[in-house]
Amino acid sequence: MSSGITFDPYASFYSSSSHHLRSSEIRDLMSAGGRGDVISFAGGLPFTESLPAGEVSDAMLQVLKESHAEALQYCETEGRMPLKRALIKVMASEGITAEENHILITTGSQQALDLLARIFIDPSDSIVVEGPTYVGALSAFRAAMPNFTTIPLDHMGMDVDILSRELKNGLKPKFAYVVPNFHNPAGVTMSAPRRKRLIELAEEYDFLIIEDNPYGLLRFDGEPLLPIVALEKTRVVYLGTLSKIVSPGIRIGWVNAPLPIIDRLAILKQSADLCSSSLNQMFAERLISRDLWKKNINNLKPIYKSRKDAMIRSLEKHFPSECRWTNPEGGLFIWVTLPEYLDTTKMLPLAIESGVAFVPGVAFFADGSGANMMRLNFSFPTEPQISEGIMRLGKVVEREISLYHSLGLNNSH
Amino acid sequence: MSSGITFDPYASFYSSSSHHLRSSEIRDLMSAGGRGDVISFAGGLPFTESLPAGEVSDAMLQVLKESHAEALQYCETEGRMPLKRALIKVMASEGITAEENHILITTGSQQALDLLARIFIDPSDSIVVEGPTYVGALSAFRAAMPNFTTIPLDHMGMDVDILSRELKNGLKPKFAYVVPNFHNPAGVTMSAPRRKRLIELAEEYDFLIIEDNPYGLLRFDGEPLLPIVALEKTRVVYLGTLSKIVSPGIRIGWVNAPLPIIDRLAILKQSADLCSSSLNQMFAERLISRDLWKKNINNLKPIYKSRKDAMIRSLEKHFPSECRWTNPEGGLFIWVTLPEYLDTTKMLPLAIESGVAFVPGVAFFADGSGANMMRLNFSFPTEPQISEGIMRLGKVVEREISLYHSLGLNNSH
Repeated sequence: MSSGITFDPYASFYSSSSHHLRSSEIRDLMSAGGRGDVISFAGGLPFTESLPAGEVSDAMLQVLKESHAEALQYCETEGRMPLKRALIKVMASEGITAEENHILITTGSQQALDLLARIFIDPSDSIVVEGPTYVGALSAFRAAMPNFTTIPLDHMGMDVDILSRELKNGLKPKFAYVVPNFHNPAGVTMSAPRRKRLIELAEEYDFLIIEDNPYGLLRFDGEPLLPIVALEKTRVVYLGTLSKIVSPGIRIGWVNAPLPIIDRLAILKQSADLCSSSLNQMFAERLISRDLWKKNINNLKPIYKSRKDAMIRSLEKHFPSECRWTNPEGGLFIWVTLPEYLDTTKMLPLAIESGVAFVPGVAFFADGSGANMMRLNFSFPTEPQISEGIMRLGKVVEREISLYHSLGLNNSH
Repeated sequence: MSSGITFDPYASFYSSSSHHLRSSEIRDLMSAGGRGDVISFAGGLPFTESLPAGEVSDAMLQVLKESHAEALQYCETEGRMPLKRALIKVMASEGITAEENHILITTGSQQALDLLARIFIDPSDSIVVEGPTYVGALSAFRAAMPNFTTIPLDHMGMDVDILSRELKNGLKPKFAYVVPNFHNPAGVTMSAPRRKRLIELAEEYDFLIIEDNPYGLLRFDGEPLLPIVALEKTRVVYLGTLSKIVSPGIRIGWVNAPLPIIDRLAILKQSADLCSSSLNQMFAERLISRDLWKKNINNLKPIYKSRKDAMIRSLEKHFPSECRWTNPEGGLFIWVTLPEYLDTTKMLPLAIESGVAFVPGVAFFADGSGANMMRLNFSFPTEPQISEGIMRLGKVVEREISLYHSLGLNNSH
């Protein structure tokens, strides 16, 4: 949107930090992806049609019948106690023990990232992120102007040996931000030994770990691993959300962290939005106590697995042999690496012209790398859309590769 | 809460700006006011029981029946178009003309204040606020560390002559933040000539006006005045909210502003919480299109008027003659000024002990004044609670006055 504005008469009023704001590629893409003829692998949308309409309505009706005046009123900034108790059950299903007063309800876990950036980061502070990492975390952190250190991922998650070397060389981060399960965008899962090693490093070099776990319960293959916060509490700020297991439309996330951090976040949250929606909190609590989240997870897992499988099959069929991709055991995303000479940002308009959208890799790197990579979402498109879309995308990639080779021959003249 | 923590092992991790955070008096009080035996005039709660449970449930059921998958999904960061169209109708009822793309839906108007602080304020930038002003605006602005200039209010709102003098003397504010209708906390309304004069000053000295109008439609006496934004669009950032006319529990506010400002706010909002609840947006849109907001306003006005009258009568009956108070024509609050030698912050624990709560005046001033003032809310307590509570409070005030005089006599020995 902003890109369309050539002269901004309000430019002199803006804060210097706001000049760092930029419309994200995802954001611009979402509108491109919104075109009816484009099959979009660009979004990060869960498949909300899996939620049973009748049961959802029942739960909501119960809230409004029993306590509409309370549901429509303000509530405590920290969040409603019954919802916190319900979330303790959700966390317990992943092996986490938690207490009510260590929990702050947030307006989606995106708000948690924004609040954490603001309470922890001074301009030029060091923080550690994965390469690639969640684009929403990057933009929340960027607003606080830190120095990013990007630690690469492999198929076992963040490469803790590289992190260890950086720390030995003097890196002093405030925190390391990780998405250990079915990484967004990379699809990989951090191994158990690496989780332990990360904790050891945090202790040795005195930094915090922000563990962002939106997808942990969406494992459709393999065995679950214990979250980092289940192994170590005092150094871990854990982020949960109902967006992927229940609904993003209710904007309910939470932080589970040591008390002093929760206190500080709560004070900032009060000035950020006073409190998260009481109505949505009561609704969420009801959905959880009726075990609708479990039913929904059980509905989603086979759908996501078969969509992921369909996408892998289509990639194998339609993508040139020089390309690689991850094969996630859960979550919403596959990460594709094209030959190094290709640039997915430049490729995107061509792809959209061919009726398919993705997010270019650079969006997910703090250090500007990732030019030959892309994120594909498999949770929202249907299987026919997946095979059609990957076929279209494969053709674009093939064309780009042959174009490169033909140019390469021309150049070698 | 924080006050209970003597040592914080995480202190070294916090950003310097986060050290400016402090638990607001309101916040601490809300928990005190939550005690069953305390009659609280401290909150700012609308009377949500006025909303007809059946019609509310019907509207929600309709949303979930027609489009539950959409309501439970993410939506555009800027907010849903049908809600924007509905809000244009709400604004039109106050004489404002607006267009969809000039509107950004926010998670309550508190989020708008937070986003505005971040896009406009650099540390040490000058901004103008009223004295007193809305405490939530103060905390949102404070996080960006501006230099506040406090312009006093009288019964006709912000004293624009004083502002004019400050501007002549070289003050160069980024913006002036005003609550023109039934001011929170002061209860006063800015006169039409002052609204015009403020616009002239903004043009002459090149600053913006943030017009915060949560209560404008809750006028129970006198004739409505045109909002500032209805007189001048290019310099005014207008904040609206459904919190006081429909429900704060759905967290729906909005900004109406020039396009470049909306664009910038939207980019920041994306990293703050991605989008506001789709469910609540669709619900709100339905409530507005069914005219439930009009019905609710019509329900609320006589209730608020008669509670306000009851509070004024009780103040006249139970408060010493040295005290003064405002007599608002709408809104939720009465502002009380005690003799200058009294300190309402010190008085508060005594009041709570006597079973009544209020917000001390200092909370509402950027410049530390207001020690002898207090804010009383009349929208939430019932009339019997109001007369009992004001009687209790009157006794506390009386006791403090006699204590002062007796100490004064002692001191003069």
